[in-house]
Amino acid sequence: MLSKARIKLINQLRQKKYREINKMFFAEGSINVIDFIKSKISVIELFATEDWINNNESIIADCLTTTVSFKDLKRISALSNPSDVLAIFELPNMTTQARINNSEFVIALDDISDPGNLGTIIRTADWFGIKHIFCSKNTVDAFNPKVVQATMGSLSRVKINYSDLDILFQKIPDEFPIFGAVLNGLPLNKIEPQTNGIILIGSEAHGISAELLKYVSHKITIPSKSYDSTNKAESLNASIANAIICYALCAQ
Amino acid sequence: MLSKARIKLINQLRQKKYREINKMFFAEGSINVIDFIKSKISVIELFATEDWINNNESIIADCLTTTVSFKDLKRISALSNPSDVLAIFELPNMTTQARINNSEFVIALDDISDPGNLGTIIRTADWFGIKHIFCSKNTVDAFNPKVVQATMGSLSRVKINYSDLDILFQKIPDEFPIFGAVLNGLPLNKIEPQTNGIILIGSEAHGISAELLKYVSHKITIPSKSYDSTNKAESLNASIANAIICYALCAQ
Repeated sequence: MLSKARIKLINQLRQKKYREINKMFFAEGSINVIDFIKSKISVIELFATEDWINNNESIIADCLTTTVSFKDLKRISALSNPSDVLAIFELPNMTTQARINNSEFVIALDDISDPGNLGTIIRTADWFGIKHIFCSKNTVDAFNPKVVQATMGSLSRVKINYSDLDILFQKIPDEFPIFGAVLNGLPLNKIEPQTNGIILIGSEAHGISAELLKYVSHKITIPSKSYDSTNKAESLNASIANAIICYALCAQ
Repeated sequence: MLSKARIKLINQLRQKKYREINKMFFAEGSINVIDFIKSKISVIELFATEDWINNNESIIADCLTTTVSFKDLKRISALSNPSDVLAIFELPNMTTQARINNSEFVIALDDISDPGNLGTIIRTADWFGIKHIFCSKNTVDAFNPKVVQATMGSLSRVKINYSDLDILFQKIPDEFPIFGAVLNGLPLNKIEPQTNGIILIGSEAHGISAELLKYVSHKITIPSKSYDSTNKAESLNASIANAIICYALCAQ
């Protein structure tokens, strides 16, 4: 049975303000919910249909679980097609002082604003074994329900940190490469394979800001083909650019 | 001045049924609208703020143009943040009998359902010089406003065709390669550079259908890295997989 208080809470958790006040977020769908349960993030309460609960008994054994109807799930879901499970989790701390491990690849995001893009970037990072994403303070919140949904469980494995990237980048040793896509850089397919570095992705509207561009040691361009230089695609979507750069640098 | 009839028409054009009845679609935002005007697609009517019209006089010289307020644009826009221009265009015919040109790369889509994914795939195709996309009949409509928006003008350059892909693929010569991503295929980075072929992308929920998988001559896998084989990303977003395959095959 779903209480009015729970409906109110879950609807409030769509907003960043209430996620921060309550230190909670919610996730929907089997993949997302199960992957968060497997992670170190604590489950607060799980709401699911009887069928879903019966099929996942062993996984949810330690969770506070409430059986609800599909009709009730529609009342709390942020999706146009609700799933048969939704769970509230404890919000991880994303603002502790971050340090970049110089032996691996990480992604840095300069004001990504579209939740679908951030979710897809997190999912792609997970695929390529990238464990940390550093977001500028104006990047959309990673626990926004649309971001959570687009990560397809990957948000349970990839660590997200929000900080002032300008300050973060100042502390990076000169020899640690920072890759950033620009209009007239070195073609990505001419870059030697790398073992570590920061992949910096600019915002959808403005690309990499001048403030951060000065730290980019490897200015790269994803090669394009066009038949008419006056009428062609001006750019790639930010999550697409990120994926191609991750593939080119980390998967060889 | 925006008439009630125009408001009604534009709102109806959000639905495929009315786009087909009226043989019209609409596009919003400077990039989309200007790129369609430059293409061979006929403009029916353009609605824009006085400022936008003054800044784009030469481009829209031949268009039937109506000056509207930003408040009026909000009444017809499908966007949460309306732009200062919206235009109605003639809907291209997307169901004429298609043939694949064997000397180039094309993309084929097997039931892509998410408008954002289709739009991003069209934008990516344009970037890599791919001029034709062949969609299964159940793929989301390319002139859905959310698709148009995500293409960022590329829909004016990439030709879209809807047909029964099973029938289309039957006519393809044996030596013409068809690339499809599967779970245990040849790593994409081990594939020799190619000069032509079909990049077949499966649906978000089910991947490539069994019906079409039998035509795939090159079963490929985008290499992943994971630290825990029992808890890792299961797949990539369809538009991300498409972009990485396009880069690996067409941009080298």
